[in-house]
Amino acid sequence: MEAVNTLIAERMASEHAPRIPQVTAHLVDAGGKRLRPLLTLAAAKLCGYSGEDHIKLAATVEFIHTATLLHDDVVDESEQRRGRPTANLLWDNQSSVLVGDYLFARSFLLMVETGNLDVLRILSEASAVIAEGEVLQLSAAQSLATDESVYMQVIRGKTAALFAAATEVGGVISAAEPAHSAALRDYGDALGISFQIVDDLLDYGGTSAVFGKNIGDDFRERKMSLPVIRAVAAASVEERAFWTRVIEKGQQDEGDLEEALRLMQAHGALESTRDSALEWGQRARDALAPLPASDLKDLLGELADFVVSRAV
Amino acid sequence: MEAVNTLIAERMASEHAPRIPQVTAHLVDAGGKRLRPLLTLAAAKLCGYSGEDHIKLAATVEFIHTATLLHDDVVDESEQRRGRPTANLLWDNQSSVLVGDYLFARSFLLMVETGNLDVLRILSEASAVIAEGEVLQLSAAQSLATDESVYMQVIRGKTAALFAAATEVGGVISAAEPAHSAALRDYGDALGISFQIVDDLLDYGGTSAVFGKNIGDDFRERKMSLPVIRAVAAASVEERAFWTRVIEKGQQDEGDLEEALRLMQAHGALESTRDSALEWGQRARDALAPLPASDLKDLLGELADFVVSRAV
Repeated sequence: MEAVNTLIAERMASEHAPRIPQVTAHLVDAGGKRLRPLLTLAAAKLCGYSGEDHIKLAATVEFIHTATLLHDDVVDESEQRRGRPTANLLWDNQSSVLVGDYLFARSFLLMVETGNLDVLRILSEASAVIAEGEVLQLSAAQSLATDESVYMQVIRGKTAALFAAATEVGGVISAAEPAHSAALRDYGDALGISFQIVDDLLDYGGTSAVFGKNIGDDFRERKMSLPVIRAVAAASVEERAFWTRVIEKGQQDEGDLEEALRLMQAHGALESTRDSALEWGQRARDALAPLPASDLKDLLGELADFVVSRAV
Repeated sequence: MEAVNTLIAERMASEHAPRIPQVTAHLVDAGGKRLRPLLTLAAAKLCGYSGEDHIKLAATVEFIHTATLLHDDVVDESEQRRGRPTANLLWDNQSSVLVGDYLFARSFLLMVETGNLDVLRILSEASAVIAEGEVLQLSAAQSLATDESVYMQVIRGKTAALFAAATEVGGVISAAEPAHSAALRDYGDALGISFQIVDDLLDYGGTSAVFGKNIGDDFRERKMSLPVIRAVAAASVEERAFWTRVIEKGQQDEGDLEEALRLMQAHGALESTRDSALEWGQRARDALAPLPASDLKDLLGELADFVVSRAV
């Protein structure tokens, strides 16, 4: 990870436009979990890789993720990310859009350096699926007609696609046998789905639903996340009128978030969301089965537990 | 070009997010000159290419260009493009950002299909330089300290980089000898610079400076384009105060655009801008010298004249 961080710092430089490293550093230095590059490194090592290109791929994955965050914050008009003001607030939307574009382009340049066309195909495909998922989310938000199958499409795009690509390229760069690369891909896919479901659950305070800070962003943005979808599916006529008002019409008053939480608890929507996260965590573990036993395989398995543990 | 247009229509589809082809079609169908893909096709044919990959590369170049336009219109808060309302106005900024990202990703997928790593490097490098030029323009705008060398960096990034890459990859995909690919690159670079200088001149109505419609967008956005830079360089103390007010402070009143035009004419800034465009057009022609005589070489030469002819 040390080498990945060094490479990220090197490649976010720009000779002509000093705002680029400023904006990028603001986000990169804020930390974040660096989960995606870690997945690439672990997957490559698990497959016995001994070269250096996995470091480039890990940095690529983090660049794509960072570019996505910059654009997301513009799209969501967010004001906070990782406990700090967002780049669009500190600089402007313009800088976030363009610096995101720069990072996308740099990420492709990094991949090209590996000279591996399969890796290039997997990661550019993932980038397209990410954007597609975000566009789909735009039209799926604010509509009570959004069901679980649309939700799955959205989170497979916006989150799981990069997790799946991050682990798969670790196998592919190692010239692992196809069944192993496919297992790593399935693992990343399930892990990403589990991760996003947990995120969506935590946005409503988790199953404890203790009313704390940073709760309710998705509610205010009228996102059809899993807890909402399940509460809506079980809603009475009066409750449906409530959801129509706050999600579809966007008329939100004081006390509405508390009411939403009350309805979710009444219908067990938070518990069943947690159960789904656990189920996808288990699928991630199961996907690892074809891979030979090793410490790194155990670590990936524990990572699946860790991701879900935030929610229980 | 027929095959390029078909491929563009095919590849802008999205199974899950119908808004993607809607937004893209709005821009693609509006026409535009399709100058960049034409350059790629012509360059490849000029170098004797007989395969099919130049069509993919031409579509790639147009996708990158379209993605850039979508993001530009968000950055500039534009309301019109190619005589129609912009996508950010018809849909929203979110769609423009995300559909642009999707097209970038699709463009990389298209390139990967050619399997040519040199082409991938050239076009991802160009994408990075485009974003860098746009970021540089953000900080260069609204400052009278922006001089011609910064202006050249900006337009080399935002315009010439893609022209240069479009022509160079035509040579590279044909396995042309390096001197020929380099000549094509130099031609594209000079043509792009000439093209952008003409664009900047036309935004002030050209050398005739007839006050018509669609004039003054750059003035309102306080861009330091070449006519402004040259008028500022020749400004008296009173004139400089005018430029400081309208460009740096952004206090623009009725009659200010006319006053700006008057000052440009008084100092010959429009004529000298046209002369620079002509000079770069000539450099584009000269760059073609190493290439063997052919009808396509003549066509590229005439294209350089055509680009500049809009300004005279």
